[in-house]
Amino acid sequence: MLFKNIIDSVALLKRTQCAYIKSFKMAKSTFEYVKTFEQDDTLLPNTWIVVRLDGKCFHKFSEDHNFKKPNDIRALKLMNYAAFKVLHEFNDVLMAFGQSDEYSFILRKTCFLYKRRAAKLLTTLNSKFSSTYVFYWNKFFDQEPLKYPPTFDGRIVLYPSDENIIDYLKWRQADVHINNLYNTSFWTLVLQGGLTPTQAEKRLCGTVSADKNEILYKEFNINYNNEPNIFKRGTVLMRKSLLNESSKKPMSIIVDVHDDMLKDTFWKENSNLLLPKSKQSINHEGPITDIINEQINKGHNTIADIVNVNK
Amino acid sequence: MLFKNIIDSVALLKRTQCAYIKSFKMAKSTFEYVKTFEQDDTLLPNTWIVVRLDGKCFHKFSEDHNFKKPNDIRALKLMNYAAFKVLHEFNDVLMAFGQSDEYSFILRKTCFLYKRRAAKLLTTLNSKFSSTYVFYWNKFFDQEPLKYPPTFDGRIVLYPSDENIIDYLKWRQADVHINNLYNTSFWTLVLQGGLTPTQAEKRLCGTVSADKNEILYKEFNINYNNEPNIFKRGTVLMRKSLLNESSKKPMSIIVDVHDDMLKDTFWKENSNLLLPKSKQSINHEGPITDIINEQINKGHNTIADIVNVNK
Amino acid sequence: MLFKNIIDSVALLKRTQCAYIKSFKMAKSTFEYVKTFEQDDTLLPNTWIVVRLDGKCFHKFSEDHNFKKPNDIRALKLMNYAAFKVLHEFNDVLMAFGQSDEYSFILRKTCFLYKRRAAKLLTTLNSKFSSTYVFYWNKFFDQEPLKYPPTFDGRIVLYPSDENIIDYLKWRQADVHINNLYNTSFWTLVLQGGLTPTQAEKRLCGTVSADKNEILYKEFNINYNNEPNIFKRGTVLMRKSLLNESSKKPMSIIVDVHDDMLKDTFWKENSNLLLPKSKQSINHEGPITDIINEQINKGHNTIADIVNVNK
Amino acid sequence: MLFKNIIDSVALLKRTQCAYIKSFKMAKSTFEYVKTFEQDDTLLPNTWIVVRLDGKCFHKFSEDHNFKKPNDIRALKLMNYAAFKVLHEFNDVLMAFGQSDEYSFILRKTCFLYKRRAAKLLTTLNSKFSSTYVFYWNKFFDQEPLKYPPTFDGRIVLYPSDENIIDYLKWRQADVHINNLYNTSFWTLVLQGGLTPTQAEKRLCGTVSADKNEILYKEFNINYNNEPNIFKRGTVLMRKSLLNESSKKPMSIIVDVHDDMLKDTFWKENSNLLLPKSKQSINHEGPITDIINEQINKGHNTIADIVNVNK
Repeated sequence: MLFKNIIDSVALLKRTQCAYIKSFKMAKSTFEYVKTFEQDDTLLPNTWIVVRLDGKCFHKFSEDHNFKKPNDIRALKLMNYAAFKVLHEFNDVLMAFGQSDEYSFILRKTCFLYKRRAAKLLTTLNSKFSSTYVFYWNKFFDQEPLKYPPTFDGRIVLYPSDENIIDYLKWRQADVHINNLYNTSFWTLVLQGGLTPTQAEKRLCGTVSADKNEILYKEFNINYNNEPNIFKRGTVLMRKSLLNESSKKPMSIIVDVHDDMLKDTFWKENSNLLLPKSKQSINHEGPITDIINEQINKGHNTIADIVNVNK
Repeated sequence: MLFKNIIDSVALLKRTQCAYIKSFKMAKSTFEYVKTFEQDDTLLPNTWIVVRLDGKCFHKFSEDHNFKKPNDIRALKLMNYAAFKVLHEFNDVLMAFGQSDEYSFILRKTCFLYKRRAAKLLTTLNSKFSSTYVFYWNKFFDQEPLKYPPTFDGRIVLYPSDENIIDYLKWRQADVHINNLYNTSFWTLVLQGGLTPTQAEKRLCGTVSADKNEILYKEFNINYNNEPNIFKRGTVLMRKSLLNESSKKPMSIIVDVHDDMLKDTFWKENSNLLLPKSKQSINHEGPITDIINEQINKGHNTIADIVNVNK
Repeated sequence: MLFKNIIDSVALLKRTQCAYIKSFKMAKSTFEYVKTFEQDDTLLPNTWIVVRLDGKCFHKFSEDHNFKKPNDIRALKLMNYAAFKVLHEFNDVLMAFGQSDEYSFILRKTCFLYKRRAAKLLTTLNSKFSSTYVFYWNKFFDQEPLKYPPTFDGRIVLYPSDENIIDYLKWRQADVHINNLYNTSFWTLVLQGGLTPTQAEKRLCGTVSADKNEILYKEFNINYNNEPNIFKRGTVLMRKSLLNESSKKPMSIIVDVHDDMLKDTFWKENSNLLLPKSKQSINHEGPITDIINEQINKGHNTIADIVNVNK
Repeated sequence: MLFKNIIDSVALLKRTQCAYIKSFKMAKSTFEYVKTFEQDDTLLPNTWIVVRLDGKCFHKFSEDHNFKKPNDIRALKLMNYAAFKVLHEFNDVLMAFGQSDEYSFILRKTCFLYKRRAAKLLTTLNSKFSSTYVFYWNKFFDQEPLKYPPTFDGRIVLYPSDENIIDYLKWRQADVHINNLYNTSFWTLVLQGGLTPTQAEKRLCGTVSADKNEILYKEFNINYNNEPNIFKRGTVLMRKSLLNESSKKPMSIIVDVHDDMLKDTFWKENSNLLLPKSKQSINHEGPITDIINEQINKGHNTIADIVNVNK
């Protein structure tokens, strides 16, 4: 194409496009007023932030993926791992507590992530957890392909005092015990006792906890006390300190434990937990779990990772 | 074990456990007060609800996964497919508009899903989209493995009038054009023109749209007008009607088009779009895309699926 | 005092006060962080704003001040006058509707007074109304001294569409009729029929409106239809236009009428009412009430007053 | 009228009215949906509630009513008296702090008045204060008639911790000092120094507190320290205990003091102040003010009054 022609074409293009193009710029500014309809949702400062996620229709999801009843250890481990990844990425998440298909993340009173904007905090944690759950499915369910993507809903609740946030955690953990004792009894009656679900339900109707323990013990020789803590108590994720054997320096790690938060001893042993950031961290003295092991092997990359991802 | 012994054991178990067990029941009710800290977030009735999702740190994510610049058709198709799955599951989502790493879902003014609770609506759509994006990654990126799970944040905005919601959609689409013209010019200068990113940025600094068109046309013989509509305009997902060839009955489908919402003709042709549910749907007269084809092949199951999943 | 002494004193004063004074400045900035706890309460744009005020414990207040039963015209006129003063001061209040001890103020969709901050709008109107009620008490209750200051609570409700705001006004006016027919029947039975309140209540229990009309007509020869409109319908305050006889120019006035908003004719005759400001105002063709007369006599000062006060 | 005629008339009335009357009942239920647009505004539990009221355009109001400059003791006493009446009526108001034309009311963390609904709490206190201000105007301004009703706006702020609420009070009191030192200097320069307001403003521009003290002392022989505490510190209203001389029993009273809340001694001496209700109250050891005297003379009626009014 001759240079002259190019200039002509461009001139033509300009004439025909100019109005069109200008209209976009104008359009953008004309319509931009709709931005003012966004409403501020900043959370009250100096309050504990709880982000609780819940599986949507997980009764069906667990059936579709052959979850073991009453508890599927693979499913619980996947939940814990997804939650661990959330804590790993977001330093403002102090700790988390999970059971069944729900997970609660506790953000510090001083948290100022995303300027404490509720929707931003809520959706970021929720999305991260959801996509991580799918991404690591095969790590825990190697024989069981994921048939469709699961959904988690979420909510934010604020707690003004330390007592309130402790009571929140106790509430969720008391819930685990009550549900798990019922579910263990129910599924034992069905799977080992040969009852239909309706018969099992009827049998348990009106029973108190002591009755359920008796059924399990007398009829099936199951001492509920000996059930794994992860089933009875759920999982607590906390940031603790661990002595690095090679470097002899303490490293900050996220631990997964199944401690009893309903007991005072937990809050005494972890009395630093709710204190502001600067305070000394608590040494981890429990077993080295897979989650902890992964962090040890990654070594000193951990902190750099966090810093990079959070930027 | 003899029956007598069993009874003794049970009695023992009961004595030791009773206090403990009771404490759980009591604990639950003692701590349940924390539920009252949840605050009502019901959205104002009779307003359009927009749920807009945005990729978090997608600049890095796109580099880590070798997205083609300035537009990666695989990434756009995956975004559209995940959004399609959201519309497929949630009938209350009237339409959606997507571009780059963001998607806006428009819920009817009359939507009463989850009693219009903001957090519930927001997180459910956000989680569904996020997990779907990961689940179908390989469908669109077969040669490019997903390295880590992506995160999307989300927000909810309310629009009282039809004019407001139309202006919102125009705003987002005007944004596509402006960004895409810039990105197309920038990456052409870099990839074909051999400029460094800094040089390209400098070159484009202060240019108006007409200048960018001229650069593309004169220097690279690219007529911006001929760029694919999906790049220039983004993607609109809408519910339309299609005549089923075999059954001769109209079927309801979700279509993916790249129409120009800034033009009045769009709103004339789709004048029924914003009307209440009961009104007759609009016939689809565009091409049969992959997304549409998938629905035709699934046939009449579609509606049943929706009904089941939504329950 | 010698100049030297003054300087010494000042030096002394300075030494002793400096720390103290600095501490105030520092204190202010140290404690100012508490300002960040104020939360944004901007109302959604493009929605009708209703501010409804309600008398607190007005049953007792009306007894303590010998209000006539079932309606005290002095009390209603004082309510109307206080509301008139609110409209007079705040141009953004399009209209108002009052009945018994409640008043609803309707602010335009485009209202941007106080940047649409909810608490500011709500308390300003509420305070103005409350103090005005006390200030003008004697104008209407000349023989009945005010024993103690009354209290009004208030709330804000948003309505997205014109239909919604019209329905709101119809709802409040339908409420007047139902309450007033009951109250008229009740107090006629008590005051003229000699029944005790309990007997009157029992007599009316289970009756429909037609029964109450019959009781009034048959037993007391009262045709409810002939009751004053201010009792049956409440009072509507609107901005209308009136031809100034002397200057022959139209003047903008606030009129107090007792029209039937449940009838379509009202909305036809006042079809301009809900339109944006710029549109032509509606001529007032009703009687010249005290409230209107006051504005005519003040003449052209009215607008200047409004402008001044609103600044 | 014959009985027959009455029946006929009633029948006629019924026929003509029935449709009309029914329409009201139907209307009410048809339009009642608008109630669902009211949004929940329950305040977060376990947080301190501050309701702060502010005079609107009080610069003009104070000029129109010849307030003495820089402080008018009558105006301050009226503010205090209106605030006292608010505390007297609402037991949930723990204390209050006032200065100039503003007053802050502190409601207990455990306050459940009106179910902690924000608008209800805010408007009730605001309205009570506004109407009381007008009602008692003549008690304090006997030579100065009230020309028009004043307006106060209001806002609600939540504070999670005791430290936060103490800092809030310190912030407001530090504000008094800074404003009062400036105003005292400004008005002394104008009233005694003969400067114009502009000259006075210029003179003070850039001065720190020490400079202002020096101006007052050197040029006008005013030791700012000797200014009345009510001017320098504002007024604190608190609930204390006083020994009733006649009955020898402690009575609960509201005291008005001008203590220095910026000093630790205040919080030591009133360490019970922020504790839950049940705890023992603090003895009042300051002077018997007019406000206290009024309560002593009313004697034991006080509590009964409160109980009655609050119901």
